[in-house]
Amino acid sequence: VLSPEPLPPGSAIGILGGGQLGRMLALAAARLGFRCHVLAPDRESPAFDVAAARSVAEYSDPAALAVFAAAVDVVTYEFENVPLEAAEWLAARVPVRPGPRALAVSQDRLTEKTFLRGLGLQSARFAPVDDLASLDAALAALGSPAILKTRRFGYDGKGQAPIAAAADAGQALTALAGAPAVLEERVAFAQEISIISARSVAGAIVHYDVAANEHRAGILFRSRVPAALAPAMEAEARRAAEAILGALDYVGVIGIEFFVAGGRGEGTLLVNEFAPRVHNSGHWTEDACSVSQFENHVRAIAGWPLGRPVRHFDVEMTNLIGAEIDDWERLAGEPGARLHVYGKREVRPGRKMGHVNRLRPRS
Amino acid sequence: VLSPEPLPPGSAIGILGGGQLGRMLALAAARLGFRCHVLAPDRESPAFDVAAARSVAEYSDPAALAVFAAAVDVVTYEFENVPLEAAEWLAARVPVRPGPRALAVSQDRLTEKTFLRGLGLQSARFAPVDDLASLDAALAALGSPAILKTRRFGYDGKGQAPIAAAADAGQALTALAGAPAVLEERVAFAQEISIISARSVAGAIVHYDVAANEHRAGILFRSRVPAALAPAMEAEARRAAEAILGALDYVGVIGIEFFVAGGRGEGTLLVNEFAPRVHNSGHWTEDACSVSQFENHVRAIAGWPLGRPVRHFDVEMTNLIGAEIDDWERLAGEPGARLHVYGKREVRPGRKMGHVNRLRPRS
Repeated sequence: VLSPEPLPPGSAIGILGGGQLGRMLALAAARLGFRCHVLAPDRESPAFDVAAARSVAEYSDPAALAVFAAAVDVVTYEFENVPLEAAEWLAARVPVRPGPRALAVSQDRLTEKTFLRGLGLQSARFAPVDDLASLDAALAALGSPAILKTRRFGYDGKGQAPIAAAADAGQALTALAGAPAVLEERVAFAQEISIISARSVAGAIVHYDVAANEHRAGILFRSRVPAALAPAMEAEARRAAEAILGALDYVGVIGIEFFVAGGRGEGTLLVNEFAPRVHNSGHWTEDACSVSQFENHVRAIAGWPLGRPVRHFDVEMTNLIGAEIDDWERLAGEPGARLHVYGKREVRPGRKMGHVNRLRPRS
Repeated sequence: VLSPEPLPPGSAIGILGGGQLGRMLALAAARLGFRCHVLAPDRESPAFDVAAARSVAEYSDPAALAVFAAAVDVVTYEFENVPLEAAEWLAARVPVRPGPRALAVSQDRLTEKTFLRGLGLQSARFAPVDDLASLDAALAALGSPAILKTRRFGYDGKGQAPIAAAADAGQALTALAGAPAVLEERVAFAQEISIISARSVAGAIVHYDVAANEHRAGILFRSRVPAALAPAMEAEARRAAEAILGALDYVGVIGIEFFVAGGRGEGTLLVNEFAPRVHNSGHWTEDACSVSQFENHVRAIAGWPLGRPVRHFDVEMTNLIGAEIDDWERLAGEPGARLHVYGKREVRPGRKMGHVNRLRPRS
């Protein structure tokens, strides 16, 4: 298979989405000499502040997409809820990496879970839910407690309703406003972990070390590396990543979340979900590795060779949510702490405002 | 002494100059949540591509300076030939860091050398030259070989004429077009070294490890750290930096170049010149240190505490000059090499297009 020529420095990278992930992608791209063009609907998108060109537009705006497609050499995205039609329209004109299929699969929990099962990967048991009758049937099959999740547009714990007992079914459906959903069994897990992997245009794959994640109120609170995971299970996470990347003919960085069910170190690895983009649980790579997830994503979509991720430190990444960013002055003076601030104009509860990577010598 | 409050993330940093140093400053500032406003005369300035706001204007344009001053919370500069009047006009309206005095001293070789001598620092012997008579007198005093340098606007070997013997005097004057100049004795040196140091608003100083530099055709070719310098001489370089920083009540990063005259390790440390800005011989700090020169400059001018520079690797920084940038694809795939490309649209001989940091475990 002949790979296309890599994009030379000076080429234009189009980024759909203007949040902190787009911003950090743009910073990594600039270091390699690329120019970034960010398209996002919010005039105050933090990625605009570091982009060579900006389009303030809805993702489905045909005129804006036409300008964008004509201006860039490759398109990527920083979040998985870019309208599929927009990605497909762009892909007919300019390389879109990862491809629209990764978007299509990850945008719908039911499609995603079915895809993962098709690869032979284990996950929590699930059943589709469209109404009270199918929810009752799903609860009868999976038992309770369980969790009802919308098929689309869920993130940071949004679009989820816990079901403690069968009697809560109606309430949960109401909480999700009757949106098409999936019922998942509630897994008793010892650990939540994630792996960040990247695949190049030529099909080469690299993996970062697995991170152990802790969520609070549905939002990632902290990632720790190393994850204190049995080597065999870390290898299993890598194999799962390779199966997903290969099946999607994926180009770029992917973040895959798992539950370790049962006992720590001897449990079962269940895939929870994947994000077809750089991932919050990979922010530690920027300060602790030879090459960050952001640079490897840029390398992948530009057709460059991937950088081999060597981890130089043990590291703990903590998100700064909402008013926690007010602590910036103390964090800026903390030895060994690397502060990252996203430049968002407005502090809102639950909003990711920055993060801090705390480094220690490797254990 | 009460220090002013540090600038919070979201504040606007004004950068005079749009080259690679401004670009790398803007990237470091963005990581801490600052917005950058770059003012530079060239529409294709590489720093514009990563700046939130841009002014395409001459540095002496009063209307542009007024807009700039009103838009930013602090001003810094990426090169020392910003017109002093512009810096002083700005300093009356908004903090300019480092202050205009550092600019004034470093813009004129004679002022700079006199200033350094006044601090008790050793340098090559020198004498002012305004015409053939004063050049003949200087040559009689210092002997030959010697080197004639313009007092102002010299960089990367420009504005210099070597004098092998007294008979070359007229030719050298002609080469510099009769500009006010300084004659320097030609020092037989074992090493060229430099130190990158930073001073905070509160007067705290940090130093990076000394780099050993190699020039080709007057342009920095390579910097190596560690420099294989005697510890006592490294300490002497730090003391020289502290004297300069203190005397100028300096805020920000400074780059100071030295000759080690005589024997390696037991020679004499002579100050060559200083640059009141981040410095090419400090580009290794970005990949080899806990905190880069760019971030520490941003921290200093924003009134933040400085990051303590811990060097994690031995490192060799090599500039990519002119067509050397065409080697980007090989460099992008070289293990252990960190490639930096400045995004300049046009390749020109002698133009700095990027650099590469090659890391090795600490010796």
